[in-house]
Amino acid sequence: MIVPAKRITIIGMGLIGGSLGLALRAAQGANIRITGVDVSEDSLNTARLLGAADDITTDSKAAVKDADIVFLCTPVLQAAALAKEIAPYLKQGAIVTDTCSTKSYLMQQIAFLLPAGIHYIPGHPMAGREKSGIEAADAALFDNKWYILTPKQTADKRAVALVRQVINLTGARITVMEAGQHDVCTALISHVPHIGAAALVNLLAYSEDQDSSIKLAGGGFRDTTRIASSNADMWADICMTNAAPIVDSLDKFNQLITQITQAIREGDRARVHNFFTTAKKRRDGLLQLELSASEQPLSNGH
Amino acid sequence: MIVPAKRITIIGMGLIGGSLGLALRAAQGANIRITGVDVSEDSLNTARLLGAADDITTDSKAAVKDADIVFLCTPVLQAAALAKEIAPYLKQGAIVTDTCSTKSYLMQQIAFLLPAGIHYIPGHPMAGREKSGIEAADAALFDNKWYILTPKQTADKRAVALVRQVINLTGARITVMEAGQHDVCTALISHVPHIGAAALVNLLAYSEDQDSSIKLAGGGFRDTTRIASSNADMWADICMTNAAPIVDSLDKFNQLITQITQAIREGDRARVHNFFTTAKKRRDGLLQLELSASEQPLSNGH
Repeated sequence: MIVPAKRITIIGMGLIGGSLGLALRAAQGANIRITGVDVSEDSLNTARLLGAADDITTDSKAAVKDADIVFLCTPVLQAAALAKEIAPYLKQGAIVTDTCSTKSYLMQQIAFLLPAGIHYIPGHPMAGREKSGIEAADAALFDNKWYILTPKQTADKRAVALVRQVINLTGARITVMEAGQHDVCTALISHVPHIGAAALVNLLAYSEDQDSSIKLAGGGFRDTTRIASSNADMWADICMTNAAPIVDSLDKFNQLITQITQAIREGDRARVHNFFTTAKKRRDGLLQLELSASEQPLSNGH
Repeated sequence: MIVPAKRITIIGMGLIGGSLGLALRAAQGANIRITGVDVSEDSLNTARLLGAADDITTDSKAAVKDADIVFLCTPVLQAAALAKEIAPYLKQGAIVTDTCSTKSYLMQQIAFLLPAGIHYIPGHPMAGREKSGIEAADAALFDNKWYILTPKQTADKRAVALVRQVINLTGARITVMEAGQHDVCTALISHVPHIGAAALVNLLAYSEDQDSSIKLAGGGFRDTTRIASSNADMWADICMTNAAPIVDSLDKFNQLITQITQAIREGDRARVHNFFTTAKKRRDGLLQLELSASEQPLSNGH
């Protein structure tokens, strides 16, 4: 189906922005015109070569003038600054959306920036890779992944519908959530696990024997710490813009670690065994739920 | 090459014991006779069906009488108990080895159990899966994985050489390490990451919104917590038999989590960014070292 959004501007031609461009191109061919914006000329040239953008520029203001929809695909703090920068240049009826990992902060920042008649529809695709940058972009990155929208109750219905139509083209599974709920849940299920994985890697600073560590590492360590290889700027911004829920979850995480440490110190096998059994049950159960959820038709929730 | 060990007894026909049987069978065909021991008749029947064992029995004492080599492939605490049980029934010159994840404890337990002329050569294959049990057994499980041996300085050279020959048949990369060093390194690189992954899963008990959590989980959570789905008995035993190094590493891990929590609470982006950059550099570096290590010829270190 051909969406009524002809001109799309993507600011931030990295993994997410680039993949979005490729996915929209694959779905709409010449029916849309994509303008790619980035601070890096190299990324822009690669983006055009790959077909993720028709026009490329480092000038965000000029790039948004005629845009029907503007996607902000940068780390959160940059997205807030960009929204302020482009606000005066957006045309009436234009829609601004984003792909940032934290929502409440950005909504507060952008709320009073945009002139009347310009709509902000916040989004967050649950898609990523340990690699970042346009070189890692993939037209199928969003395919069958959840794409969360967190519009205000008062958001323009037509604007929400149009963003849904465009995102639908990427093959993502769209769902709507309240921003605060999104931020608390992602802290627990995404942000703290990421911080935990990074801490596990940094723990190796205490190892006096790198050579033995490598031999002993194995697949478990590789899997557990995979996300620790992803974009540091993005994650620093996430921590800055979702601090309260993250700190709250980290405190709870630290309590769990303290409790299991105590149980091991006391040689309390029953408690330690229960800790592992509970984790196994919970994870297996979650994956089962995830599986059945992904068996729902794509139209579901749209 | 045909190894001079004709009769091999494997006690514990689970993932590791079963995979060992399949690997030795694949390499030696009818040149060896494998006796499989387990408490579960079902596991034993499956093991024989799969070809992981020629003879099967639940009687460990009878199973070790004629064995040239006995592999203990159970959780650590059971292995210690089994060693005590079979000690009087082993023939002169027999070799006992094991595949347990912690080494110092078992070496202390077994040291004075075995009669003179019977040799204990401790081992630890760095291979595993999130699935356990004979159903998950795989002849290629050890292929190109590190297999650590931690024999005492005084261990019988002929016995060590024979164990090496047999393990070589699995395609594993053999290396020798001091037991205490092995236990400290595994605590840091394997045991604490495993406990951390389980804690991250248990953290979800605090989530009031399972449905949103599932949608927000994504691949990162799946990878980070994969090992949390593995055998609880095995891991409880690991914690009981390597408590001091694990508690020490958990305390350091706790400090790292406390420090990053404080940095986030204070909004110190530079410190948070540095935390993620360090982790990314360290992990990428370790994988690079691991890669170059695995490019060494298999003969290396044998």
